[in-house]
Amino acid sequence: MELTALTLARLNAASTATLTTVLFKRGFRNVFMQGLSPLNSAAARFVAPAFTLRYIPAREDLDGLKAFDDRRHPQRVAVEECPAGHVLVMDSRGDPQAASSGNLLVTRLMKRGCAAVITDGGFRDSPEIAALGFPAFHQRPSAPTNLIRHHAVDLQQPIACGGVAVYPGDVLVGDAEGVVVIPQHLADEVAEEAYRQTMYEDWVNERILAGEGLFGLYPLTDATQQQAYAAWAGSQSTRYPHL
Amino acid sequence: MELTALTLARLNAASTATLTTVLFKRGFRNVFMQGLSPLNSAAARFVAPAFTLRYIPAREDLDGLKAFDDRRHPQRVAVEECPAGHVLVMDSRGDPQAASSGNLLVTRLMKRGCAAVITDGGFRDSPEIAALGFPAFHQRPSAPTNLIRHHAVDLQQPIACGGVAVYPGDVLVGDAEGVVVIPQHLADEVAEEAYRQTMYEDWVNERILAGEGLFGLYPLTDATQQQAYAAWAGSQSTRYPHL
Amino acid sequence: MELTALTLARLNAASTATLTTVLFKRGFRNVFMQGLSPLNSAAARFVAPAFTLRYIPAREDLDGLKAFDDRRHPQRVAVEECPAGHVLVMDSRGDPQAASSGNLLVTRLMKRGCAAVITDGGFRDSPEIAALGFPAFHQRPSAPTNLIRHHAVDLQQPIACGGVAVYPGDVLVGDAEGVVVIPQHLADEVAEEAYRQTMYEDWVNERILAGEGLFGLYPLTDATQQQAYAAWAGSQSTRYPHL
Amino acid sequence: MELTALTLARLNAASTATLTTVLFKRGFRNVFMQGLSPLNSAAARFVAPAFTLRYIPAREDLDGLKAFDDRRHPQRVAVEECPAGHVLVMDSRGDPQAASSGNLLVTRLMKRGCAAVITDGGFRDSPEIAALGFPAFHQRPSAPTNLIRHHAVDLQQPIACGGVAVYPGDVLVGDAEGVVVIPQHLADEVAEEAYRQTMYEDWVNERILAGEGLFGLYPLTDATQQQAYAAWAGSQSTRYPHL
Amino acid sequence: MELTALTLARLNAASTATLTTVLFKRGFRNVFMQGLSPLNSAAARFVAPAFTLRYIPAREDLDGLKAFDDRRHPQRVAVEECPAGHVLVMDSRGDPQAASSGNLLVTRLMKRGCAAVITDGGFRDSPEIAALGFPAFHQRPSAPTNLIRHHAVDLQQPIACGGVAVYPGDVLVGDAEGVVVIPQHLADEVAEEAYRQTMYEDWVNERILAGEGLFGLYPLTDATQQQAYAAWAGSQSTRYPHL
Amino acid sequence: MELTALTLARLNAASTATLTTVLFKRGFRNVFMQGLSPLNSAAARFVAPAFTLRYIPAREDLDGLKAFDDRRHPQRVAVEECPAGHVLVMDSRGDPQAASSGNLLVTRLMKRGCAAVITDGGFRDSPEIAALGFPAFHQRPSAPTNLIRHHAVDLQQPIACGGVAVYPGDVLVGDAEGVVVIPQHLADEVAEEAYRQTMYEDWVNERILAGEGLFGLYPLTDATQQQAYAAWAGSQSTRYPHL
Repeated sequence: MELTALTLARLNAASTATLTTVLFKRGFRNVFMQGLSPLNSAAARFVAPAFTLRYIPAREDLDGLKAFDDRRHPQRVAVEECPAGHVLVMDSRGDPQAASSGNLLVTRLMKRGCAAVITDGGFRDSPEIAALGFPAFHQRPSAPTNLIRHHAVDLQQPIACGGVAVYPGDVLVGDAEGVVVIPQHLADEVAEEAYRQTMYEDWVNERILAGEGLFGLYPLTDATQQQAYAAWAGSQSTRYPHL
Repeated sequence: MELTALTLARLNAASTATLTTVLFKRGFRNVFMQGLSPLNSAAARFVAPAFTLRYIPAREDLDGLKAFDDRRHPQRVAVEECPAGHVLVMDSRGDPQAASSGNLLVTRLMKRGCAAVITDGGFRDSPEIAALGFPAFHQRPSAPTNLIRHHAVDLQQPIACGGVAVYPGDVLVGDAEGVVVIPQHLADEVAEEAYRQTMYEDWVNERILAGEGLFGLYPLTDATQQQAYAAWAGSQSTRYPHL
Repeated sequence: MELTALTLARLNAASTATLTTVLFKRGFRNVFMQGLSPLNSAAARFVAPAFTLRYIPAREDLDGLKAFDDRRHPQRVAVEECPAGHVLVMDSRGDPQAASSGNLLVTRLMKRGCAAVITDGGFRDSPEIAALGFPAFHQRPSAPTNLIRHHAVDLQQPIACGGVAVYPGDVLVGDAEGVVVIPQHLADEVAEEAYRQTMYEDWVNERILAGEGLFGLYPLTDATQQQAYAAWAGSQSTRYPHL
Repeated sequence: MELTALTLARLNAASTATLTTVLFKRGFRNVFMQGLSPLNSAAARFVAPAFTLRYIPAREDLDGLKAFDDRRHPQRVAVEECPAGHVLVMDSRGDPQAASSGNLLVTRLMKRGCAAVITDGGFRDSPEIAALGFPAFHQRPSAPTNLIRHHAVDLQQPIACGGVAVYPGDVLVGDAEGVVVIPQHLADEVAEEAYRQTMYEDWVNERILAGEGLFGLYPLTDATQQQAYAAWAGSQSTRYPHL
Repeated sequence: MELTALTLARLNAASTATLTTVLFKRGFRNVFMQGLSPLNSAAARFVAPAFTLRYIPAREDLDGLKAFDDRRHPQRVAVEECPAGHVLVMDSRGDPQAASSGNLLVTRLMKRGCAAVITDGGFRDSPEIAALGFPAFHQRPSAPTNLIRHHAVDLQQPIACGGVAVYPGDVLVGDAEGVVVIPQHLADEVAEEAYRQTMYEDWVNERILAGEGLFGLYPLTDATQQQAYAAWAGSQSTRYPHL
Repeated sequence: MELTALTLARLNAASTATLTTVLFKRGFRNVFMQGLSPLNSAAARFVAPAFTLRYIPAREDLDGLKAFDDRRHPQRVAVEECPAGHVLVMDSRGDPQAASSGNLLVTRLMKRGCAAVITDGGFRDSPEIAALGFPAFHQRPSAPTNLIRHHAVDLQQPIACGGVAVYPGDVLVGDAEGVVVIPQHLADEVAEEAYRQTMYEDWVNERILAGEGLFGLYPLTDATQQQAYAAWAGSQSTRYPHL
């Protein structure tokens, strides 16, 4: 399933915080990857479907440096096959004691047109990755080479990342706060509601900066405020073209 | 109890590190909030009495999004009632898996003249809060909406935050390192001693930068150094006007 | 044992990530200090032999503020005796709840010509230390005074730091990613191989930025790529003067 | 609100595991206290309404041994005022580094007819408490006296215990597995459904021990099995007198 | 691959401790499942090939109680298809906050002739499972129903359990200390060496109980002790029939 | 310094809980080893001076199985040289991922007349050690051989164990709850006070079992109760012969 341009545009305008609220309304409580942060907070924003890679613990007889000579090694295959516009998401069992990947592989992903890269472990060469300006999220920097603790085992299987289920094709959105996972079949409706919610919260923010209080405004329970918002919202088509 | 202008000025000149030492001399070992950091290290400095809010774990039947329609919801009441010049301190049980608060509420606190906001959980909209230039401290960013894990239960009760007891009215001081809690009745004497200690350590710092060694200087056990310090200190009334 | 100028130059050109790979080839899996980061990522790079200080938990009758009056206090002795060009490494049992050291001591180390300072606990006065431009690594900022939790017990003993064994004289290398420990007797050979590996990875990086794929290039299993690399490497003596 | 004899009897027959399922059907996901276990697994079973005590971190000037001379000290008041048939539940912020209580206080609770005692910290005198045969749950044994880390602050407020919200009057059920919290207003309906579920699972257990497979049996989707169960269930009034 | 009767007999005589030593000699450092313990230490001993089940985090729209109505649900399929003589090993991501399984399913495994069951999360109905006398290992008891946190996703894939890689068919050995994983292709040679090592350590134990010291005995570096052992070992064919 | 028979007898009658209280009165807050428990709670009681062994992380080139061939290996020296009547205390950095020691070494300690053995890591062969009836305390069972993670580095140095400072010669007391560390120079006075406190608490326990309340009794603030206690205490010389 392709993301439509409209859904992409709407999600690009929504924060991960707003998206968690919209998903909570639909009963989803566990959609934000816990404990991950962008290596470069100025290059954190992305919207993309997930392409998954799963690690299990390394085993000394299988995971020597020669393992990478095999062109079928799932980590290398992932980097060469993750489709453009997609985000490579790695289940590293939350273990940052050895790297999930490094700068050379992340640069290759970027060059291939991928949208972002995520691990719930750590990246090595983290200063170089941060300098790429490519969205990358992890737990903490980790210099040790991948094979010391990780064995890449399969691609495009449902995984855990940051404590959240990620199914291939799920729509991930990242910003400087972190990453949220949207089940694929809900992407369009979540995008629409999040876009409207963003417009509303932008207005609330302006009202608060103008000195107004929360009550009646946030949530919008006051009738006068409801009218004020309706009036304002009706004239925002330029600022919010994706309504 | 109001903070006097003198105490406020003195505490504004002291680091959290110095304050922990002054409190340790009085037998206090646990006054620094563990694991918290400012969202914006250039906007971390504050001195303010504590106004407290306590969370317990959410319960699904009580903590739906409708909960915020109630104007008596303690989180919203806290934001509207925390007095100007005070810091809102939230006991989130050290749980950053859902947000303690977000940008709209923090902006409202700022507009109302509050001094700072602290949680031992996490803030959502953390990039926006960081951009406010308003002192805010937490454990880590947390996009998920508050109600997923937190139930605001009461105001102005003694709480735990970052492993430290906080009683309403305790004087909190923040800087780029973190937050220290001063029992209210000790604020004046701690401020005075910390101010003097700051002056002394500034002098030590200059001596070290000039090439001197630690022995006799820090601590000030050498008689010659004691005289040198006394001489220097006697001429610093411009630089240290709050002696 | 002195570090030769050549080994120093080579290690200065290698990243901690590359060094973990070179050490892994020799069977070392645990050489990267886990969970530590530089206070100032722009001032993280250093290469230096280790001078060690060990802490055990404080005991109230031994660790009052008067403890520092004793000129034999190991923490103060460490700061005055760590040789120029060396890095002071502190085993703080991974406990950042009170400071391992503060700005005045770190400044003194810098003035004495030491290369860097490391603790697996935390530094107090962390904003001032970050501003020094002196390589310093820790777990997180920690304002509380040292004696609240730490008792300096001995110098120049083998220690643990960040989960890694550090023997006095081991060669430590730091960069913005963290710190790697090289057993002293391997410093020369590790430096040479890491320097070559750095040259190779620089070339790979250029090829990837030029649009090439990983297979055959990284690792270098393709004969054509091997020739291309040999040709390129043969002409790099200016860029890599320490071959 | 009193627990009816019928609800009490039904809950006494249900395991904590079954109760979490019945509550999950009503949307409750977080009702089992995490990480707590009985000191004596042969004396773990209880059903009782909650009486709550809240601790915050100790402060050295307030929490000396003289604190217990005050008859209004909330910990001692709790032990003397927790009603017979109730369970004293302590919010110790999940901190077992000092005791939440010890044998003398637990013995007094037992003598006063209380039903059980719970902390998410630890008990001291744990071997003696285990020998009492009185239901007591904690995280781990903890010899250090209470005041070293805990300050009893209030009674009968909503609290957190083991990561679960506990409101005064909530109905707690304990067995050798742990403790589940039932919101007070749901106690009767949860008791009824759990009792029926227990009867059903007892039957399933017999069928499995007789060699039958899971499919159609558990869950009960097979029509033949449904009839078999209906027939069996119709004749169990002696064994299950509280239907 | 079937386990031979000889290998089975030898492994049944070896402790998990001895097996880790034999595997360490072959370069394996990570073969013991960390943090798991038997529910019943008197019923912990087993030797069996692994049959694997993998969980990822639950998602509210997929993991309601109706999920178990589907006979293809991997957890239920696992329980009905794990071959007799095999151990069912569950990758629960080390999360004991909801159950990996409960008594009814474990009883069914036992009835079907399976050898043991392992999760790195927790079992519900843990007192009943402990009473079965069937080898079961977990992290801690966990009453909440499986679906609250776990989604069974696939069978017979390589997994992580207790921080160790488990490939289907690997030979697992359990005792009251825990569980060790032997790569399938090494089972025979590890069994032989472990059996001999067990015999040797039994003899050492007798010597120590007789008052001898460690030096020369353990390890066996003393020539006289070597002769004594050789003499003893030559006459043990009755006690050690599987040499 | 030798422990006198009187001090030994008194400490043998006191619980670790009582000892923490007596030490707290003298300003000691951190004397109970956190997170350790006896392998056999029926064989936990001991009183003994500490003999210390320190581990740092293993390094692959130093810590192969051949390391034990060296008779100067500190772990083996410790087992052969820890004096009779002493407790061997191991600083394992709180790491139970590989064993601190196993059954053969612990049996040798027992045979040599040592009083107990403690690690803040884990023992292998834990079921066999539990069966010895010899006081042994650890964090959790750990089958992997010592050298995988631990390098024994020195003897009789001050160490950390379970978060507590242990100086050689400090007096350790263990019971089923855990282990308390008494600074050597305080052993006599702590023993005396703890013995009296034990007598008092035994009386309180009897009064509570007889139905009395806490107020005035515990602490003993009521004049009538004080007289009652004085009368009772005056006649207890048989039951408490070490007053």
